[in-house]
Amino acid sequence: MREELFPFIYYENGKLKIDGISVEELARKYGTPLYVYSQSALEHWFKEFDSAFSSIEHITCFAVKSNSNISVLKVLKELGAGADTVSMGEIFRALTAGIDPKKIVFAGVGKRIDEIEYGLEKGILMFNVESESELYAINRVAEKLGKVAPIAFRVNPDVNPKTHPYISTGLKTSKFGIAYEGAIELYKKAKNLKNINPIGIHFHIGSQITDVSVFGEAARKIKEIVKELYSVGIEIEYFDAGGGLGISYNPNEPPVPARALADEIIPIIKDLGCKLILEPGRRLAGNAGILLSQVIYKKERHEKLFYIVDAGMNDLARPSLYKAYHHIVPASKKEGNLKKADVVGPICETGDILAEDRELPPLNEGDIIAVLSAGAYGFTMASNYNSRPRPAEVIAKEGRAEIIRQRETLGDLISKEEIF
Amino acid sequence: MREELFPFIYYENGKLKIDGISVEELARKYGTPLYVYSQSALEHWFKEFDSAFSSIEHITCFAVKSNSNISVLKVLKELGAGADTVSMGEIFRALTAGIDPKKIVFAGVGKRIDEIEYGLEKGILMFNVESESELYAINRVAEKLGKVAPIAFRVNPDVNPKTHPYISTGLKTSKFGIAYEGAIELYKKAKNLKNINPIGIHFHIGSQITDVSVFGEAARKIKEIVKELYSVGIEIEYFDAGGGLGISYNPNEPPVPARALADEIIPIIKDLGCKLILEPGRRLAGNAGILLSQVIYKKERHEKLFYIVDAGMNDLARPSLYKAYHHIVPASKKEGNLKKADVVGPICETGDILAEDRELPPLNEGDIIAVLSAGAYGFTMASNYNSRPRPAEVIAKEGRAEIIRQRETLGDLISKEEIF
Repeated sequence: MREELFPFIYYENGKLKIDGISVEELARKYGTPLYVYSQSALEHWFKEFDSAFSSIEHITCFAVKSNSNISVLKVLKELGAGADTVSMGEIFRALTAGIDPKKIVFAGVGKRIDEIEYGLEKGILMFNVESESELYAINRVAEKLGKVAPIAFRVNPDVNPKTHPYISTGLKTSKFGIAYEGAIELYKKAKNLKNINPIGIHFHIGSQITDVSVFGEAARKIKEIVKELYSVGIEIEYFDAGGGLGISYNPNEPPVPARALADEIIPIIKDLGCKLILEPGRRLAGNAGILLSQVIYKKERHEKLFYIVDAGMNDLARPSLYKAYHHIVPASKKEGNLKKADVVGPICETGDILAEDRELPPLNEGDIIAVLSAGAYGFTMASNYNSRPRPAEVIAKEGRAEIIRQRETLGDLISKEEIF
Repeated sequence: MREELFPFIYYENGKLKIDGISVEELARKYGTPLYVYSQSALEHWFKEFDSAFSSIEHITCFAVKSNSNISVLKVLKELGAGADTVSMGEIFRALTAGIDPKKIVFAGVGKRIDEIEYGLEKGILMFNVESESELYAINRVAEKLGKVAPIAFRVNPDVNPKTHPYISTGLKTSKFGIAYEGAIELYKKAKNLKNINPIGIHFHIGSQITDVSVFGEAARKIKEIVKELYSVGIEIEYFDAGGGLGISYNPNEPPVPARALADEIIPIIKDLGCKLILEPGRRLAGNAGILLSQVIYKKERHEKLFYIVDAGMNDLARPSLYKAYHHIVPASKKEGNLKKADVVGPICETGDILAEDRELPPLNEGDIIAVLSAGAYGFTMASNYNSRPRPAEVIAKEGRAEIIRQRETLGDLISKEEIF
């Protein structure tokens, strides 16, 4: 009896398993809260995405901000992934995982001088430039180092991705990218700079987008710029369509297939002769990971039922930060009627809620639960708030599990402090 | 020429200083982003608060979650502070700073067994119990260790603190505390448990409260319970009125004096003969600290002006998490007309905004700015999101500065990881 929730995450004889291992066994062995990733699921989602684009020359650059664990990066690298990075720290992680610098793109509105130096010294593929000031900063640094910096401009296509305002980035009032109207002029300026080589164009319209037509809308707008650039002798080699393809946060709803994105974008750009860059993050890692937590106390008050669990907003920030939905299931299937409950963490904030008024089977103190779709923007956003050591991370593959990040200790909390 | 923003944070001859040191000098020496605390301001705010309660026996227990740096705790400890803690990590920090365990209270809805053991072994003053289940858990642990656990119940007075919904904790629909109506019954149950000694009562209605009358309302309700407990022979020794007294986030608006809180509470509880416990956090640390950041790029687009700075939502979460207001000032006074701008961080999220449509003097790339009121819920909520090492922390006192937490390095980011 097998019931799949997401690929490689399923109930077998009433026990929740990930990639061949019972989550209760993992919780016992490694403690809770615990992030667990399925290597097979990472591979599944990478291939589902990457193969959709097989008809065009492309690089699938994993968005490191979604899950930056080196072992996760290494799994994706083995399949040919590059990295979409937004900081020196992320480039460092990608390189540590063995990702080829020629497959690393570096975006972000606030690149510091030392970060630009680092990128140039490591020989990354290109800098996705987000402002005119940054262009000159990169030129200056490149000149100093005697290098030529390969760049793309991140052009703002001003399309509405119809997603959470915090994760829609392609509107003209946002801090991201350069204005559509001024793009040609900037490319001309870039071309005239001695230490800059404009080789690409980039757009990124947001995150968790499920209506793929907005990617088409953006790609068509950006294509117009590329054609105009060709006409003035600026050769664009890389067309970077960014990331943002959504996942399903509900096991009962199938995700938009990556093929739909490919079918939308490829016909638009095929005749340009560019190499395509794609930057999926959540799409590859989101449903490859879960967060395990234990019910500490059950509490009933004024007809309201609370399950207080040992994972808080410091471990998984999305529910409190975005009011995001994460599906929650028990590690062992439960008999009994569903009942509305709040699943809350131990943090001293009212916003520390994993699920509100959620229909759940009856849970007991000591039970293990799994918060699904926690493989992206989970651990990377974790903090030590309330002086809580951050969870461990584990990777599972076909019945074996390996720890890929140790649980923090009390000593770790203060290891950078010095008593005054 | 001196212009005070907050005590010990002021302009002197056009230069912003904290506790006798120019912030530009600090930024140069320690880099940015940088948290800087004024020891004199911590002392000022502690004394302003603590002395307001001098007419009654009391312990001022600093809420460690607001600022848990050991050196900050040590400064407060020297003045007699205890600690309000919500996790084993916070108790560990308080003890490391030398705070007397008999001045440590331990609250929180999700105390784990190992945390209860730790508190009992260290001999803390009392556990602020938030549910019946927790009461029995503490009793079991205490029995196992052959100890008697001193406890208070956190009773929910169901008053509306008129603050942000995320930080109002005293409503009856919240996860916190036990129901007002069932309190007496629970105390009787506690009294009958062999390894429990109910010695206190606790309430905590929220955070950043500026209308002190709600504290009075809550205290009167809790007092009724204490009187009833006396009548059934349960002696309440500690009356813990929690924290939550607000600060001013705007230098032009004076804060509610702590004296107003004292005048509200003391007359209510004086005749009970209890010792008073108070748990200020933000009130003591909030305006004793600032976050220094550097303008990386200036960007104008569609009549919108952006200052992109090197501090992001990973360094200071409050603006994106709560849409909180933080006053921002330049390190050097500027000539020129105020202009509306967004001050944004380098994180790849639209929500990474420190200030929106803020009237600011003209800033240039390279300028240092100070984000005020960042001494509480600043560093404690910081994360490594976007693989950004967390900032350093510095304490200043009368013209001298000491580093109290080293800036994290790239190596620190991965030091707990193991490659699979």
